[in-house]
Amino acid sequence: MTRIHISEVGPRDGLQSIKRTMPLEARKAWIAAEAAAGVPEIEVGSLGPASLLPQMAGAEELIAFARSIEGLDVAALVPNRKGAQRAIEAGAQKISIPFSMSETHSLKNVRKNHSEMIAEIRSIAALLDALPAQTRPHFEVGLATAFGCTLEGTVSEDAVVRLAAAAIEAGAIEVGLSDTTGYANPAQVKRLVRKVKAAIGNDKLNTLHLHNTRGLGLANVLAGLEEGITTFDASLGGLGGCPFAPGASGNIVTEDLVFMLQAMGIETGIDLEKLLKVRQIIIDALPGEPLYGFTPDAGLPLGFGATAQ
Amino acid sequence: MTRIHISEVGPRDGLQSIKRTMPLEARKAWIAAEAAAGVPEIEVGSLGPASLLPQMAGAEELIAFARSIEGLDVAALVPNRKGAQRAIEAGAQKISIPFSMSETHSLKNVRKNHSEMIAEIRSIAALLDALPAQTRPHFEVGLATAFGCTLEGTVSEDAVVRLAAAAIEAGAIEVGLSDTTGYANPAQVKRLVRKVKAAIGNDKLNTLHLHNTRGLGLANVLAGLEEGITTFDASLGGLGGCPFAPGASGNIVTEDLVFMLQAMGIETGIDLEKLLKVRQIIIDALPGEPLYGFTPDAGLPLGFGATAQ
Repeated sequence: MTRIHISEVGPRDGLQSIKRTMPLEARKAWIAAEAAAGVPEIEVGSLGPASLLPQMAGAEELIAFARSIEGLDVAALVPNRKGAQRAIEAGAQKISIPFSMSETHSLKNVRKNHSEMIAEIRSIAALLDALPAQTRPHFEVGLATAFGCTLEGTVSEDAVVRLAAAAIEAGAIEVGLSDTTGYANPAQVKRLVRKVKAAIGNDKLNTLHLHNTRGLGLANVLAGLEEGITTFDASLGGLGGCPFAPGASGNIVTEDLVFMLQAMGIETGIDLEKLLKVRQIIIDALPGEPLYGFTPDAGLPLGFGATAQ
Repeated sequence: MTRIHISEVGPRDGLQSIKRTMPLEARKAWIAAEAAAGVPEIEVGSLGPASLLPQMAGAEELIAFARSIEGLDVAALVPNRKGAQRAIEAGAQKISIPFSMSETHSLKNVRKNHSEMIAEIRSIAALLDALPAQTRPHFEVGLATAFGCTLEGTVSEDAVVRLAAAAIEAGAIEVGLSDTTGYANPAQVKRLVRKVKAAIGNDKLNTLHLHNTRGLGLANVLAGLEEGITTFDASLGGLGGCPFAPGASGNIVTEDLVFMLQAMGIETGIDLEKLLKVRQIIIDALPGEPLYGFTPDAGLPLGFGATAQ
């Protein structure tokens, strides 16, 4: 049986997309409950300047807390070398830096062009190389806006392939493809995954970060599965929505993703009934915040589990 | 380029699932607007007893109206021979009878067991055979609850294969697989489509009727596409929701389906911008009725059309 790795990014991507700040204790409860439901990896926060992302305050404390949970892989987003340094000191086991394939988006988002971003990746890789191997976090570069950009429109697939190779050359252990804007479709997912794997090696692209902005999120997951992708990012309750499109959904919904995989007979290690209950922690901590997902409303099919085998 | 056939079932499946009745003039406006947007086939109503389905009153008038629209294929649902007779007299070009794979569901829904349903199909086929070939409607049997049942739970795939063959033997031109309850997953869609095609012939299973109850609707479409399915039912705005799960979505959403197909470079003959505007007719005629779909909220990607090629 195939096993697929789910990385919960709600405490980072979900929370940084909403205006309110979830209290640190609620974030801890969320992380602990998802880990207890069997979610193997959680991106607990982002280590950007607190002035820019007040919702992410306390990221170091969250990393340390999450590290105390046995069996959980603790990931953190870092916008730059400084963030990487903080994540390393706090004990993150995986650090991800977003690298926008749209240079316009990159300049707007982190005020760096592509060469400057490659230099930043190289600098983080050097930082990691200086650490003893047993404490060295895994280093992923997330290729943001890889499927299109709200500022540039179409993003060249050749450019994505070239920049993926440049990120690996600069020292990334692997790259992931991110549909930051919800532009991806299944045919494009297959084509781009194939092209990038052909350029950098099968083992250097394992992750898709998909959004459900136009409802295609799980179809894009299926396309990724068929191309050998083994890790999918998702957000519980699709928390955060889409900052580019009010009322539209953001990250794919962890609950629906896990339902789909388990219904297909794909192992995730997650207890879906337990996972569905974690949603209440978000509802209690952020009353009125829009949540997404169909499985939580519809419930599990009669005889579910029997049908899955 | 592949061409996929969309059958809009909102005026039937959508409207029969809600309590209110959409005025006949609004239903005509909806049908005319979707046809003008290029939708090639519309199931305009159901020909059951008016006492049981007051929302479907005027089905014959709608069939006649829709027949006046050039280029549109006019479909109608019929629960039995009597409904088939009415649909034929009104001028329907395609008639579909739902045949529930769950006998419990069949007994509850139409008070007929499997043998009685096969007899009904045979009787309708005889009625059709007596017509001159040029006026004979296409005859489809929709295998309802083919992916699972809210009453029985798991539905045996072997039983679906057997009953599909029995429906063809009884005179159906083709069968479709219906995920009436939103239980289907992509692995199951592929497996069942393959099994049924192997039993009755590749050209006798062309249609999937999918629901989005647990968010897997478009992933299931992708699975169907990969198995050679060429016709997909869908409902504009996902109108009707899911009677089994309040708050949960019903039919897959025509707008999101067309967006996915066109983004993948698959031809549908539909003008998506025009289609998105048809939604307003439902909003005006049924104010406050919940509608679904992500593409209508998010809008089309920047440069859409350029990316699709």
